[in-house]
Amino acid sequence: MLVSRLSKLPGIGKKSALRIAYYLLRADASFAAALAEAVAGIRDKVKTCSDCGSYTEDDPCPVCADPGRDRRTLCVVEQPQDIDPLESTGEYRGMYHVLGGVISPLDGVGPRDLSIVRLVDRIKTLCVKEIILATNPTVEGDATALYLVKLLENRDIKISRLALGLPVGGDLEYADRLTLARSLRGRTPMTGG
Amino acid sequence: MLVSRLSKLPGIGKKSALRIAYYLLRADASFAAALAEAVAGIRDKVKTCSDCGSYTEDDPCPVCADPGRDRRTLCVVEQPQDIDPLESTGEYRGMYHVLGGVISPLDGVGPRDLSIVRLVDRIKTLCVKEIILATNPTVEGDATALYLVKLLENRDIKISRLALGLPVGGDLEYADRLTLARSLRGRTPMTGG
Repeated sequence: MLVSRLSKLPGIGKKSALRIAYYLLRADASFAAALAEAVAGIRDKVKTCSDCGSYTEDDPCPVCADPGRDRRTLCVVEQPQDIDPLESTGEYRGMYHVLGGVISPLDGVGPRDLSIVRLVDRIKTLCVKEIILATNPTVEGDATALYLVKLLENRDIKISRLALGLPVGGDLEYADRLTLARSLRGRTPMTGG
Repeated sequence: MLVSRLSKLPGIGKKSALRIAYYLLRADASFAAALAEAVAGIRDKVKTCSDCGSYTEDDPCPVCADPGRDRRTLCVVEQPQDIDPLESTGEYRGMYHVLGGVISPLDGVGPRDLSIVRLVDRIKTLCVKEIILATNPTVEGDATALYLVKLLENRDIKISRLALGLPVGGDLEYADRLTLARSLRGRTPMTGG
């Protein structure tokens, strides 16, 4: 019962699930109780930030509540879990907006299923000057980015997209053809001339 | 004997070497003879292009000999094997220059050990207008690129470097911190504003 449910979690197969079950049997009884409570409570405790749409225990979320963040810059992501990696770069000091997905006609997801009306609202109220489209570099992520560019152009806003290219520390020999092509096209100037 | 030598080849372990040996025993006798001849001949047949420094059977190599290539654009790579992936993008129509390595003080490789005098010569004779530094995005590759920028700036040449960023089809969630930081810094404008 526990094993079959555990093994439905991402990254946990049947073997790991069994290992966890045995661990719970061996560990202090209070540990299993505390874990059970935490799992039961997650849906009550974690809310959606009414500003950016990210997951948070407090509403608004720490980023939206932080007065030190640059409110004129908005980074648009697909899912709440995309915010963490961007924050961990330490490079970004603006706000976020979670779309809640990407435009994907095959899956029946259109612009109306995403948090786009709310995005346009926030752009107005925050007087946003720059938007960074950080949807994933996939077909759907690209299509969504293009849709947003069409929707938002002709406002006095700088719109950009995360750069595509070689990974840091990578090797040309192992780069895929498409990435290398984008890396060439988007080459970074090192001097004028 | 054969197995121990085969297993020294890159990407071939002991098991693959054994499999190859058994294959050669089973296959037509002429196959092993032809393979042996090809292996024996490679060092005689394959030369270094006296223009770009790439491997080639004819000197100059097909790229240097192609009158349709843009002689004003030069892509600088570390090794001959870096040219193939760039060619396979179909995006690049200029010439190449193989440095033959990267500056790496720890390995005792300095600028003099690389084909840099020849590079400066070729820049002059070809009247190069744009240089794309396609050394790998590693510490040594970056250092070599910076060295070349310092050496070549103040000539009327546009110098750029392959873009760093997310791989095409990739996912923010799985991107490493450094790559994501470069992807943010190098974001591509999608509109003015």
